[in-house]
Amino acid sequence: MDDVSLMRAALEQARIAADLGEVPVGAVIAKDGEIIARAHNTRETEKNATHHAELLAIDEACRKLGGWRLWQCELFVTLEPCPMCTGAIINSRLKRVVYGAKDEKAGCCGSVTNLFEMPFNHKPVLESGLLEEECAALLRAFFERLRLQRKRGDKPKWKKPQ
Amino acid sequence: MDDVSLMRAALEQARIAADLGEVPVGAVIAKDGEIIARAHNTRETEKNATHHAELLAIDEACRKLGGWRLWQCELFVTLEPCPMCTGAIINSRLKRVVYGAKDEKAGCCGSVTNLFEMPFNHKPVLESGLLEEECAALLRAFFERLRLQRKRGDKPKWKKPQ
Repeated sequence: MDDVSLMRAALEQARIAADLGEVPVGAVIAKDGEIIARAHNTRETEKNATHHAELLAIDEACRKLGGWRLWQCELFVTLEPCPMCTGAIINSRLKRVVYGAKDEKAGCCGSVTNLFEMPFNHKPVLESGLLEEECAALLRAFFERLRLQRKRGDKPKWKKPQ
Repeated sequence: MDDVSLMRAALEQARIAADLGEVPVGAVIAKDGEIIARAHNTRETEKNATHHAELLAIDEACRKLGGWRLWQCELFVTLEPCPMCTGAIINSRLKRVVYGAKDEKAGCCGSVTNLFEMPFNHKPVLESGLLEEECAALLRAFFERLRLQRKRGDKPKWKKPQ
C-alpha cells in the first residue's frame, strides 16, 4: 500500500472514533507496506488516559511482531502526536512517522515542541501534511458538533465500544 | 502512607524488575495516601515498548478508578520519567509526581527537557530526589552486572514474568 492509502486507513479509524463520540484520531502501523496494526482514540469509551490511537497501535504492533523495536515499521496518524505518543514513537524506534493535521495545542512533532530534535536515542523520519485537509475537517466537524451539543445543554453520550 | 513509604513501595517494584533482568524502575500511584496501582518495567519480558512502570501504573489506576482523570492521585517513581511517561502524566492529569533518581539521557522532568514547563493543558506538582541514592544504586548495580555479562559474552536471559 502507498502512503495515501495508509493515511486513508488511518482516517477510517478516526471515523470509527468519531462514531463513538471520541476525538477523531486514527492510526495505522505498516511494515513493508502492509498494515500490521490499526487503532483509534478510545480515551472516553475506555476511560483511560493512555488510550490514544498511536499508543494503542504501537502496543498492538509490538504484540504482533513479538518485539519492542519497530525499526522496520512506519506510523500513519491523522493528527500530530502528543508528548506521550511522540515519546512512545521514540521508545519503539519507529522508522518513519507521517501525520495529517497539526495539533497547535499539544503536538510534539513541531507545534508545541519537536521532541525528535532533542538528544534522545532515536529520531525517525518525519513527514507531515498528508491528507491534512481531510484529517483536519474531521476534527473540526467533531468539535463544532460538541460546541453545539454543549450550547443545547446535551450531555455527551459515550457509546460503549463494540 | 507517607512519601517515604510510597517511594519504598516503588523501590520494591523496581527490585521485581531487576529480578526479571529488566532495567529496575518501579512506580506506584496513591490516592489519599493509599496505593491504588503498582507496576514495574516489563519492556523486555513483555517485548513491548510501552511497558514502562509509570505507563502501566497510570493504565491500572484509570481502570481501577473508572476514569481517565487522576486529579486526586500522586505518582511515585524511582527514575525520572521519559518523554512517553511524562506525556502520560500530563494526559492523566496526575496531581503530583515524585521521582527518585535523575535520568540524564531521557528524563523529561528537568534533565533533557522539562515538559511540565511547556504550555500543555496540565502541570502537576513536581518533586525529585526522594530516596535518590537507593533508586540510583539499584540502577547502577543493574548496569554494572549487564556490562560484566557482556564482557563475559553471556546472552541476557529474560525470565518469563510470573
